[in-house]
Amino acid sequence: MTVTFGKIIELGGQPLTGGGGPLICTPLVASDEPSLLRELDAVCAKRPDLVEWRVDFFSGIADTARVLALARAIRERAGKRPIIFTRRSTREGGQPTGITEEQVLSLCEAVCATGCVDFLDYEMSSEARHFQAARQAAQRAGVQLIASFHDFDGTPPGEEIVARLVAMEQAGADIAKVAVMPRVIEDVLTLLGATVAARRRIELPIISMSMGAYGSLSRLFGWAFGSSVSFAVGDQASAPGQVPIEDLRLVVDIVRRALAAG
Amino acid sequence: MTVTFGKIIELGGQPLTGGGGPLICTPLVASDEPSLLRELDAVCAKRPDLVEWRVDFFSGIADTARVLALARAIRERAGKRPIIFTRRSTREGGQPTGITEEQVLSLCEAVCATGCVDFLDYEMSSEARHFQAARQAAQRAGVQLIASFHDFDGTPPGEEIVARLVAMEQAGADIAKVAVMPRVIEDVLTLLGATVAARRRIELPIISMSMGAYGSLSRLFGWAFGSSVSFAVGDQASAPGQVPIEDLRLVVDIVRRALAAG
Repeated sequence: MTVTFGKIIELGGQPLTGGGGPLICTPLVASDEPSLLRELDAVCAKRPDLVEWRVDFFSGIADTARVLALARAIRERAGKRPIIFTRRSTREGGQPTGITEEQVLSLCEAVCATGCVDFLDYEMSSEARHFQAARQAAQRAGVQLIASFHDFDGTPPGEEIVARLVAMEQAGADIAKVAVMPRVIEDVLTLLGATVAARRRIELPIISMSMGAYGSLSRLFGWAFGSSVSFAVGDQASAPGQVPIEDLRLVVDIVRRALAAG
Repeated sequence: MTVTFGKIIELGGQPLTGGGGPLICTPLVASDEPSLLRELDAVCAKRPDLVEWRVDFFSGIADTARVLALARAIRERAGKRPIIFTRRSTREGGQPTGITEEQVLSLCEAVCATGCVDFLDYEMSSEARHFQAARQAAQRAGVQLIASFHDFDGTPPGEEIVARLVAMEQAGADIAKVAVMPRVIEDVLTLLGATVAARRRIELPIISMSMGAYGSLSRLFGWAFGSSVSFAVGDQASAPGQVPIEDLRLVVDIVRRALAAG
């Protein structure tokens, strides 16, 4: 029996491996420079495979120079640890920022151009021209584009989740991400089933999760069903249901042994 | 959001609780008296919630007096720890014993009558008259009947798994158990989905698991989908995919915290 697991994400031609489990990504959600750098230090001490800077939490988001300076500071302090740059829209669970989508795109382009980030997250529900602009900005800078979709209100039918992931591949993303909220525990199974189905159907690495209490199950075990990354708490959570990185590591180790032995 | 989990199993009017997770049951599979009592000591040191004596592994199964004497010795040594008495047929993954089904039934009746066991496992695929005889023997002795179904070759469709669990309730079982083998990882989701569906439909506590490598996932977190018991290895495994009891406990603790916090 071939074990599925998530497709391996590469960076600069080298595989990023989470030691046989998922890559573990911890979010950075501080609102100013000193607290963000403190958060980064606290997070890096826990050795995540990736860090995600949620710039929508940053109070200086409207000031490009501040964002670029902070991106450089993060890069320097994070060492070789890959960085995801993410502006989550309020529509998909992010913080209000007061800047227009055009400003967001200019910011993404400028940040990508610094070479300080490795991945750019951009939402698939954006206007097509915006999505393509983000894609081009990422491509020009050699940054991988994570197309993302979030539903904080519920879990679409499995076929719809698969269709969204397929559409991300067709739109030219490098990685396809979906995060949905379960209303009943069966919804967690729907998300996991859609992940396996999409894993068999598209070439892109997939990042998938169910959120909230029940969804924490998918954060712990979803990698066995084909999700390449799991988001875990280093210092502070960025979405409901994220588990502490230490807990995720313990569970991944146990599951890996069980899958190898069974 | 109401968390589902498994229905609580009662014994003598008292709930058996696994501290908020599943009851953990460790099998006893030794083939003679001294090694079985050694195994029991090793297993009890790990404080399982239940022990299951798999009498089909016992070389003295054809000698009722030996079985009864050993049942008494197990009871004495296990203290108040509840005991499941199980003869697994070769048809459903057990060891060859060389005794007839009528002899098995007489043995079950005699063992139940000693008061040394708390649960009797009997297979639902047996002839109806045999199943009813087992049921009556258990009932007379105040022993709870676990109706069981095992498929080591594959995973039936979810509706069929649910139908089997419903049929166990209709046949007068006290607990309904199903164990199936995944051929693809989606089969694990089928088993978990069927468990939730049956949990919403019948009153009996359910014990469900997917076996083998992928199935170990269900042993670790199937309780969140409604399985009341998970079988884990104390000393030696009795079926493929069982994880060490220490690992199961660690994962259950982490999942419980995640479900409470999410």
